[in-house]
Amino acid sequence: MAAWKGSSVLITGGNRGLGLEMVRQFLESPNPPDQVFAGCRDPEGPRAKCLKDLSEKHSERLFIVQLDITDPVSIKEAAKQVESKLNNRGLNLLINNAAINLHRTLDETDSDDMMRCYKTNVVGPMLMAKEFLPCLKMAAQSSDLQGMCCRKAAVINLSTLVASIEKCPETFGMAPMYPYRTSKAALNMLTQCLSEDFRKEEILCNAIHPGWVKTDMGGKEAPLDVVDSVGGVFQVLSALTEKNAGQCLDWEGKIIPW
Amino acid sequence: MAAWKGSSVLITGGNRGLGLEMVRQFLESPNPPDQVFAGCRDPEGPRAKCLKDLSEKHSERLFIVQLDITDPVSIKEAAKQVESKLNNRGLNLLINNAAINLHRTLDETDSDDMMRCYKTNVVGPMLMAKEFLPCLKMAAQSSDLQGMCCRKAAVINLSTLVASIEKCPETFGMAPMYPYRTSKAALNMLTQCLSEDFRKEEILCNAIHPGWVKTDMGGKEAPLDVVDSVGGVFQVLSALTEKNAGQCLDWEGKIIPW
Repeated sequence: MAAWKGSSVLITGGNRGLGLEMVRQFLESPNPPDQVFAGCRDPEGPRAKCLKDLSEKHSERLFIVQLDITDPVSIKEAAKQVESKLNNRGLNLLINNAAINLHRTLDETDSDDMMRCYKTNVVGPMLMAKEFLPCLKMAAQSSDLQGMCCRKAAVINLSTLVASIEKCPETFGMAPMYPYRTSKAALNMLTQCLSEDFRKEEILCNAIHPGWVKTDMGGKEAPLDVVDSVGGVFQVLSALTEKNAGQCLDWEGKIIPW
Repeated sequence: MAAWKGSSVLITGGNRGLGLEMVRQFLESPNPPDQVFAGCRDPEGPRAKCLKDLSEKHSERLFIVQLDITDPVSIKEAAKQVESKLNNRGLNLLINNAAINLHRTLDETDSDDMMRCYKTNVVGPMLMAKEFLPCLKMAAQSSDLQGMCCRKAAVINLSTLVASIEKCPETFGMAPMYPYRTSKAALNMLTQCLSEDFRKEEILCNAIHPGWVKTDMGGKEAPLDVVDSVGGVFQVLSALTEKNAGQCLDWEGKIIPW
């Protein structure tokens, strides 16, 4: 079981599906992080109810942050707000979880679909990494830990098996979704770019495929339960070191080819 | 030397750099295509002068097509116009060459850069493939050639070495350009998706890295001359078969890993 004590984490899209389960498992772990920030577009809306309930139970360490990752201004505001709460210790772990999937074939898709998917799935994570970089740097600098790890300073991008260009011939037939696939392949490239860029700051960057999970996005026919998916992802995260920098790994720790 | 006689080709961004040189080498080959369509945003503008000069010399086979690949309406119009000139034999080869590069580091880039690059480099080629699919299908169906090849029916996307996610750790330092890299990785995914999607129609789809070329985009310090790059690319194109479907190859025929 990972010991997150003493660390701070931020999860985008923290009000539903995988994001909400990550927030929950962080808070309910035997050694929870000191601070869990959950990004959420509309904290007062009906879709944030479960997150609100959690925040009442864990008011000392869960902070709901208004955050729309498609809006650069909202990201800047959220970065300021989080920074003001960090007490100069920085942010240890940023999990870019918020994403959309559009199930569109070539025939069904258009320019707007493609652009909307890219904005949420790639531009959002890019801006998050950029705006939270000062907080991540501060965390890396103020840490006593050697090398690189998620407890020190890391950006984790939620990727997918269908982002693998190499595996496309195997997976395309069951998932011919152009806007999603192209955006997630670009997210994998973003991950490698950030990994190279942030290496000198000792900030780790990885992409994680959480499996095909029973969520609103994954659908009911998905084979993996959200509790097991997040449990697996957390085990993988807690074992990451500089040797893994830039890799895309699945929830069982297996490397996914680009 | 490739024999293009009897075929029709369309090159986007045909008025400058690699695109213009492709148009020229097609027209001046010993066995030129019957029809060469050169897409160009502003056929009457000063940047189309060289293309205009070529069209006067090769008026029987070069057709300049007004085409802005960032505009879905323009793409639809161009498809209608090209189709009307094809005499029911279809379009054999679509080369998605038009692209932009923004030399922006993480610190320098923003949402608008990312979106603009994606629109031109990924959404444009996607819409081109979609709108010209009827013409490509017609070419595949009316061809006597067995298997798949560029003389029968193919979509070629101009990619780049820096689109390789695997090679990012080697190439990032010299080219830390976020909007371009993420868009071109997405283009590689698009290529594989189209390859899988179009296989049943016997339409080939590949990505080609033309090398680092002395053009407006590549800059003066590039090691490769545009004539040699296009010569190499054409040799590779003329040798492609169904065995290469979906691959990314460089101008010397070497496979580039995803």
